[in-house]
Amino acid sequence: MPQIFRTTRRIEFRDTDAAGIAHFSMFLVAMEQVEHEFLRSLGLSVLASDATGPISWPRVAVHCDFSGAVRFEDVLDAELTIDRLGHKSITYRVRFGHLGRPVAEGTITAVCCRLDGANWQSTPIPDWFRQKVQPFAAA
Amino acid sequence: MPQIFRTTRRIEFRDTDAAGIAHFSMFLVAMEQVEHEFLRSLGLSVLASDATGPISWPRVAVHCDFSGAVRFEDVLDAELTIDRLGHKSITYRVRFGHLGRPVAEGTITAVCCRLDGANWQSTPIPDWFRQKVQPFAAA
Amino acid sequence: MPQIFRTTRRIEFRDTDAAGIAHFSMFLVAMEQVEHEFLRSLGLSVLASDATGPISWPRVAVHCDFSGAVRFEDVLDAELTIDRLGHKSITYRVRFGHLGRPVAEGTITAVCCRLDGANWQSTPIPDWFRQKVQPFAAA
Amino acid sequence: MPQIFRTTRRIEFRDTDAAGIAHFSMFLVAMEQVEHEFLRSLGLSVLASDATGPISWPRVAVHCDFSGAVRFEDVLDAELTIDRLGHKSITYRVRFGHLGRPVAEGTITAVCCRLDGANWQSTPIPDWFRQKVQPFAAA
Repeated sequence: MPQIFRTTRRIEFRDTDAAGIAHFSMFLVAMEQVEHEFLRSLGLSVLASDATGPISWPRVAVHCDFSGAVRFEDVLDAELTIDRLGHKSITYRVRFGHLGRPVAEGTITAVCCRLDGANWQSTPIPDWFRQKVQPFAAA
Repeated sequence: MPQIFRTTRRIEFRDTDAAGIAHFSMFLVAMEQVEHEFLRSLGLSVLASDATGPISWPRVAVHCDFSGAVRFEDVLDAELTIDRLGHKSITYRVRFGHLGRPVAEGTITAVCCRLDGANWQSTPIPDWFRQKVQPFAAA
Repeated sequence: MPQIFRTTRRIEFRDTDAAGIAHFSMFLVAMEQVEHEFLRSLGLSVLASDATGPISWPRVAVHCDFSGAVRFEDVLDAELTIDRLGHKSITYRVRFGHLGRPVAEGTITAVCCRLDGANWQSTPIPDWFRQKVQPFAAA
Repeated sequence: MPQIFRTTRRIEFRDTDAAGIAHFSMFLVAMEQVEHEFLRSLGLSVLASDATGPISWPRVAVHCDFSGAVRFEDVLDAELTIDRLGHKSITYRVRFGHLGRPVAEGTITAVCCRLDGANWQSTPIPDWFRQKVQPFAAA
């Protein structure tokens, strides 16, 4: 069984909209923030460097399904796992709930890139990164 | 052939991030803004009322694939069509390009809802709405 | 000496812009979030109700001076005090620093309002609210 | 009399909050967008370069007073003038109204900077920039 990274996120007033609930785009931003917090918990960063140079993780695909609404000052529970740990890319899955009720679930696929001159080019995920995130990946 | 709604959107400075490009979440927000502009172009609004009462369109699913980057002050071309005009829901597709190059493409699925007491309940799309958006829907 | 409410806030990737630093508007949003966290720490909320009805605190003025830059994943130290606890309004002051260096300092003035029919009207700050925030107010 | 730069801005759904109106921070972002649109109207950009190198305009102070509320799909009228055209800095003033009613008014002070090694240092505003914005400055 893959490990699960768990954190929480409070709905801020700026996250809400005139329907009185958190705007759907907040969940996309929050998924990325959960990913970044997950990486920090492993001593990693989405913006890192090694002896070969800087590494970046542009997003190539995101999706999110919404099954419930949350309001100002609600605290979301978030769970992150890795759907697919590929050669050059990672697909993270984030589930948000509130008081035991599912609220939103989505994925972010990010590609490992290094600078090639002025452009970012996809590159195999370095071993020092892969080893740390591996326990959270589905078999 | 379904009709296509076309508009443009300039990348504002607040849309960018420390990678120097428009943040991925901007495209999700922009997809919704294109949907709202499309509805206005037909004399509709995402927040409307008829004799039966107010109508709202909560989002149940979004996705977006990213194939290129855009920068501050770039002007995106946007094209909206309707992938599926269902009994109670609509799936919009929005394609963003820049100078002829594809940049991002995604979908938003929204469900037609009416107030039932204090709660929003899904409801058949009213005819006065359906007739106006029908020409933009795939057969 | 007034009490000081202290908290921290990490710079998220979405807070940054193409200049590589946190966008100035992030500090305005963060000031409000510090205010709301301060109120929660006292068992209050910016959206509250008492026997007379709901209370809201629309903002009538904000300002912020910027003296330094912060980057992705930096953690801001935030200090909140109350510049002025008036009859119907409060002016909060929030100072942000990073590793002992001042970064930004601003104020938010919010007016206590109650619903009068469909409109919000300014109203004296209720005693149950005033007593809790009083220790943080300058004499 | 200084010239006035005029434009409009529609309130998007993401600009609103759970109070049902445009969030105060939207006006700060919009002030900057009006500034950037003003510069583009003169053939300038807030991110520019000349023979000496790149120029940037970090913000050192902002303020905004709010006198009215606006809602989803309202169209703001915006007027920009220059309060102070200094040696190294500019203070822009932006007034927002809706259907003839004042809504918000604020200022942004930005400092002209050039890269000095890895750091931005304040520098006199170049003549080619000053001449274009001069007609909008108070005497």
